[in-house]
Parts: sequence; structure tokens; C-alpha cells
Amino acid sequence: MPEMHPDSQHIIEENREFTMFSWSVQNQANPIHMTGGKGSHFFDGSGNAWLDMASQLVSINVGHQHPKILQAIKDQVDTMCFAGPGFATDVRAELGRKLSEVTGLAKSFFTLGGSEANENAMKMARLYTGRPKIITRYRSYHGATMGSMTASGDPRRWPVEPGVPGIVRVFDPYMYRPPLGMTAEQWEEGCISHIEEVIQMEGPHTIAAIMVEGITGSNGVLVPPDSYYPRLRALCDKYSILLITDEVMSGFGRTGTWLATQHYGIKPDIVTCAKGLTSGYMPLGAVIVNDKIADYFETHFLAGGLTYSGHPVSLAAAIANIKVYEEENIFEHVRELGVHLGQRLEAMKRKFACVGDVRYIGLFSVLELVKDKATKEPLAPFNGTSPEMGKLAAHLKSKHIYAMLRFNWAFVCPPLVITKEELDHGLDMYEEALALVDQMILGPVAAD
Amino acid sequence: MPEMHPDSQHIIEENREFTMFSWSVQNQANPIHMTGGKGSHFFDGSGNAWLDMASQLVSINVGHQHPKILQAIKDQVDTMCFAGPGFATDVRAELGRKLSEVTGLAKSFFTLGGSEANENAMKMARLYTGRPKIITRYRSYHGATMGSMTASGDPRRWPVEPGVPGIVRVFDPYMYRPPLGMTAEQWEEGCISHIEEVIQMEGPHTIAAIMVEGITGSNGVLVPPDSYYPRLRALCDKYSILLITDEVMSGFGRTGTWLATQHYGIKPDIVTCAKGLTSGYMPLGAVIVNDKIADYFETHFLAGGLTYSGHPVSLAAAIANIKVYEEENIFEHVRELGVHLGQRLEAMKRKFACVGDVRYIGLFSVLELVKDKATKEPLAPFNGTSPEMGKLAAHLKSKHIYAMLRFNWAFVCPPLVITKEELDHGLDMYEEALALVDQMILGPVAAD
Repeated sequence: MPEMHPDSQHIIEENREFTMFSWSVQNQANPIHMTGGKGSHFFDGSGNAWLDMASQLVSINVGHQHPKILQAIKDQVDTMCFAGPGFATDVRAELGRKLSEVTGLAKSFFTLGGSEANENAMKMARLYTGRPKIITRYRSYHGATMGSMTASGDPRRWPVEPGVPGIVRVFDPYMYRPPLGMTAEQWEEGCISHIEEVIQMEGPHTIAAIMVEGITGSNGVLVPPDSYYPRLRALCDKYSILLITDEVMSGFGRTGTWLATQHYGIKPDIVTCAKGLTSGYMPLGAVIVNDKIADYFETHFLAGGLTYSGHPVSLAAAIANIKVYEEENIFEHVRELGVHLGQRLEAMKRKFACVGDVRYIGLFSVLELVKDKATKEPLAPFNGTSPEMGKLAAHLKSKHIYAMLRFNWAFVCPPLVITKEELDHGLDMYEEALALVDQMILGPVAAD
Repeated sequence: MPEMHPDSQHIIEENREFTMFSWSVQNQANPIHMTGGKGSHFFDGSGNAWLDMASQLVSINVGHQHPKILQAIKDQVDTMCFAGPGFATDVRAELGRKLSEVTGLAKSFFTLGGSEANENAMKMARLYTGRPKIITRYRSYHGATMGSMTASGDPRRWPVEPGVPGIVRVFDPYMYRPPLGMTAEQWEEGCISHIEEVIQMEGPHTIAAIMVEGITGSNGVLVPPDSYYPRLRALCDKYSILLITDEVMSGFGRTGTWLATQHYGIKPDIVTCAKGLTSGYMPLGAVIVNDKIADYFETHFLAGGLTYSGHPVSLAAAIANIKVYEEENIFEHVRELGVHLGQRLEAMKRKFACVGDVRYIGLFSVLELVKDKATKEPLAPFNGTSPEMGKLAAHLKSKHIYAMLRFNWAFVCPPLVITKEELDHGLDMYEEALALVDQMILGPVAAD
């Protein structure tokens, strides 16, 4: 339970004096001092409990401080805290077998996070096919190391370009804002035929893989039309191109299944995952490949590795985390509560002038905010913010609601163990904040 | 203590069936089943204790299962197992302050390992200077993600080239094999003037940084001449180029100091570290920058990040590990035992025909093996192996000595807590193996 920390301000000052914060201008970083957590809440040094509507970075799926995972970590630490990547271990066998079972794929290669997983997935695809290019999507984030950063379409790549050669980008199943003024109906057809046209222009024999997020995450929870994945799978098969799905954010229960693609009845050739694999309790990523790719590397050199590939404590955390998903029927809870979340988001779209679109699957969702529903003018510009988004952020913060906001998007991605009551409270606070935004864009009278 | 594992063969089979091993042709991977360890030894599933003369991957500096670090990890797990990268935490303040103290630099950015640390160091150098190129060395390894892999000169980059643009490579302070038939004396002068000539040809105003391993590790423990670092530092200053030292392997006590460059009285602008920072108990890397670079990012965007930047359990492991270094006077032990190690290596060079060169600093050392001392013909070709190296490996394995061998090098990099008796036993087994190699290259009679 939250307690006052005797020296919280000093801790924050030292964090700023001696450490650097991700994706920030450092003198604008304004970190909360976190001291602990439980379930859907975390605690700060002033004795407040925050409702974590972002699961930290869409990662702490089973909630804060789940006792079964803590115990499994401590047990593994006592047994064997480290083994090099060349060793066989009990936990490596167990997690490898389990990941094969839940994904229907063959073999896992372990990394520490999603970025390295995507680096290795692209490497394997290039080595396996002998082809140089990877197709990715503009509205995507695959990680910050140079290979994964270049694969990303996200503006976070801009400051470090040019990146690696051979990345070709295509447009996304963003049905709220189709490119070239197309209607959603036109773009539902076009979003795949567009990719096929790019493949033809690039030369199908030069393309190793198409890599997409299972469901696009930090670029706006772009839930694709039902036809998207079956058509993308068929397109890959037609040209013998591998399909890599990055399930770092969308996998492991976030949408109510192990993999988001399981909603659409297709199977990728390579899956990458991280975050929900351990719920962030320990750093871990994985590249999981099908039997053909696994067979290829039986007799060919796998040109990748890292000191902490197969770190025993990370693997033990993942095993325990997966058991929690299964024993506590968490995915069923996600699917049920996801229906309620969807209903509330749709109601918010009807109620508030600033809510242009809502997209949701399981407990993975976003409100896309606009200044005007008719023109769809975003509430903040691409790669920017606005006074209205600032107001939204300030209100949620004042209510100790921790939310992920980006550009003109307000995400709702709580821990998968969140109760209906907690979720409703969180969404009520979003509604209060949206009412304030409506006042700003409509003026105080019109919003009443 | 080692015990028989009831199902060891099955565990190994499942590791091979369901997981992939780093830098390997998978059907040639022959993993040892590790079940635990203590100090300088680890245990296998058949009940054997192995003397770990490689510290796993030159990482487990304080030895296996040090009780103080295990306890610190468990305590942090119970307090708060995860906080996102945007949060201030107690351990983040403490480790940031401590790293500033031991390196004399200003601020730390936390990653999960060395590869990501080097990616971010290069990014920061480019953003800070506004210059595109990085000079690195041929005989180097900086990690496997695309930026760090391209920065590496190591053959491990070959399968995934071309990499990122802007890497320029120069030759190394490899005094046993200077380039172009130069003598060691000529090359001691030439190894820096060569870099200056490259700088002039590339354009000094295009070069952001020179990045070098503190002491080159897996490419042969290339201990530079004493003049190297002062001259390299002066060269960087002359052209306003940043000096980045990758202390992933050479830092945190491996050579008896916090940073290898502390032997040479110079200070880099950016240091990267990992491995010995936590002794591998938890995954952690860090980029530590000087005050000018820290100041720059106070008002400029730091374009880098990862979900697990500042993972509390990793930071707690590093804090405990550093305390162990200090409280148990481990660096003093390394410096003392390093003198003994050097004497034994020099004696081995005199005694065995196959030992062409020995290089050592602290407990970081290598035997460079040759077929002929006069011609210096390597015992195995560059990026290859040979029956003689196979014999060496097989003998050490038969004696349960775990050693790192690569090309024509036999490394000696034991845990920093190894006793003189343990080290002498390990070296005795190396001597047995070298005698077998001498028999192969000289014939059985001549070796007697």
C-alpha cells in the first residue's frame, strides 16, 4: 500500500542529475517517483496510488507485483541466476516448448526485448531467403536499435536516419484516415493491393519479408479489417515472402489471445514478442520461427547472439507469467471486459465532440481525438502536441490516472487483471478530461 | 554443490528441439546442461563441477551465485519489480550517482546490454556533434544489433552486411601482428598516425567519434602500448572528435580498475558498459556521458529509449555487485593475481612451441597460438578452426575446464574472485592441452 517516502524530492533530483530519460529533452522530463505497486495500481513517493491505464508501457499485463511471478523469480535466482547463451537449462527447455505450443511455431531464439527480437527476425528472414529487402509499414514502431528503428515508420527514426539499407515502407490499414482521399471501403480493398503493387515494383525476388505489428500499437491501435490478414498471408504465399508479425505489444493476452493474428485465422512465419511475455517483470524478448526456418538453421549459421540470450531468470519469469495467464483465465477476462470497454468507448465517441474515432480489441484501445468530427482535423498535429492534449494530460494526472497519450491519441491499455469497477473509474476520469477538451474546442456553452 | 539431474539428456534434447543457440549452426550445437554454480565453478546435469575460466562470456565477474547479489535482487523484486523508463526510482538515483563517481563522468542512460549501449552512444555522439561518421577498429566487437554490428570489425558482421552508413574502420594496436610488415616499433608510432591520416582523408568535420573497446576483448585481448591512449585522446581533442570507449568486457574490475582507460590516465567522453556492471546476474548496460554531452541533452531531444531502460531489478543487481567489488577488495585481488597470471603466461610462452604471444592485464588475458614461432603462422586461420585447436578444446573439456577459444586464441578470463589455487589448477590444465598441441605440430619426439 502507498506510503510517504521520506526523501522523495531528493530522489527525483538525483534521478535527473545522474540519469537520462528515454525520448526526452532532459530538462523537460518530469518523472513520477515510483515506490511500488499492486495489481492495477502503482504508488508514488507522496503516498498516492495511481490507476495504471497504460500498463506502464503496455507491458505489465498481469498487474504490479503479482506474487506468483515474484516467487518464481526468487526461486530461479536461488537455483541459478545466470547461464551463458550456449548452455542448456531447465527453464530454456520449458519455455521453448511452451512457446511452440501456444504459437503453433517451432523454435524460439531469446533476446532481451522487442527491438533485438525484430533485429534477429529480419536477420533470419534475410539469411533464410537470401533476399535483401524487408517491407514494413509507415505507422509502425519496431524498436530503437538501428535495424529495428529503420524498420519503424514512426518519426522516432527521423533523428538517426539514414538507417540500414533495404527497408521499403507501405501504407497502413488506418481505416479512419485512408491515404489519397480514399473512402474506407476503397482502402479496405486498396490496403493490400497497394502492397502488391509495391512488391511488383521492388521485384518480388528481392523481398525477404513483410514485417507488421500484430495490431499496430503506439501508432494508434490500428485494428485492421477482418479481410486484411488472410489477404496479406495469401500475398506473402504468392511471392514466397515471409510474414513476420511483431507481437511485442499486441501479443500475450493484450487482445485476449496469445497472438493478435489468432483472431484472423492465419499463422505468420516468424513472430516476435517481448513485454507481455514476462509482463515486464524481467527483460525478455523472443523470435519464434516456423519449422522450415528452424530446419534451415539446423545446417546454416545463425549469425546472431547476445550475452543474455536465454537468461534463466528472464525465462523463469516468462514461464510463471504464462501460468498466471492460464490458471487465472486472464484471456477470457480480457475478452469479456473488452466488450464492455468497446461499448464505453463507442458511447464516448457519441457523447464527445472531440472523439473522432475509437479502436479497440481486447484491452488494447485508443481514442482518436479531433477538433472537428466532420473535417477530422486532429486535436494535435502529427508528431506534436497541443493545449487541448495538455489539458487532457493534466486532468488525468490530477486524478492519479496514468495514461499513455501521443499526438492526438489517448490510449486505454490497462493491466489485463483490471476489474470492471477499476476500469469504469478510469474511463470516468477520461470522460471528465474529454469534457474539458470539448469546452476548449466548442466553448463552454456549446459543450453543456 | 553438483548433483545428478534426473532428466539431463531430455533437457538437452528439448533445448535443441525448441530453442536456437547464438552464433551456431544448430545441429552442431552441443550444449552443456547447466544446473547451478558457486564461485569459480558451475555444475552440470551429470554432477560435474566445471572451473569457469571464461567467466561464462567474460561476464560473471564476482563468480556464480554470490549471496549478497542474490539477496539484493530478491529484495528489489519484493519491493518493486518493474517501473517504466519514465519513472524516477530509488535505485536509479543510487546507481546513477555511483557510476558518475567511479567513472568521473556525468550521467548514465540505461540499456539492457552492451549492444544497445553502443547503439545509443553512437546516436548521442552523432546528435551532439551533428557529424555523421564514426571511426571504429577492424579487430573489434561492439554487439549484434545493426548499428553495433556495423561498428564491429569482427567477421560476425559479414553475414548481415551492408549495415548502417557512416562507419569508417582503422587498424588496431595489435603489436604482435602489425599491418604491412611493419615492426612493432614502427607500428607503435604508426597505429595513431594511421588514424590521423584516415581522419584527414574522411574530413575531420564529418567524424562524430572514435569508438574503441577499452581493451579489445574477443578479438584477441589487444593490450595497447602505453602511449596509445594519451595519443588517441590528444588526436580526438585536436579535431574535436568524441572518444567513446566500450568497456563492456574490459570494465568493472576485469583489468583491476573500473575502466581500462584508467590505467592510462585519460578520460573518454562517453563510456559504455554491461557484463561486469551486474556480473550478468541481471541484464544491464549503460551509456555514461561527460558533462558537456549531458548538458547538450538538457535542451535537445534524446532520440533513444527502450521499455526496460532503468529496470529496477537490474539496477539493484548492479548496486549490489559494485558493493561486492568494493567491500571484498576485488580489484586489489585482480591486480595482485594478475601479476601471477602474467608470470605463468610468460612461462608458458617460453615452454611451448605453439605459444606465439601472450597478452594480459589484470585477469583479462589470451594465449595466441601458432604453428611456428618464427613465421607466426596461426594455429588456426582467421575466422576458422583447426585440428590442433580442436584437440586443445577437447582436452580442456575432458578436465571440466570451461574456456573461451576462438580462431587461434585461448583466452584466460576467470571470475575475479578466483583463488590462486583454482587459477593454478586451470592453468595446469591449459599446459597439459598445450603439450598435446606441441606434439601435433612438432611430432611426439621433438616435444619431449
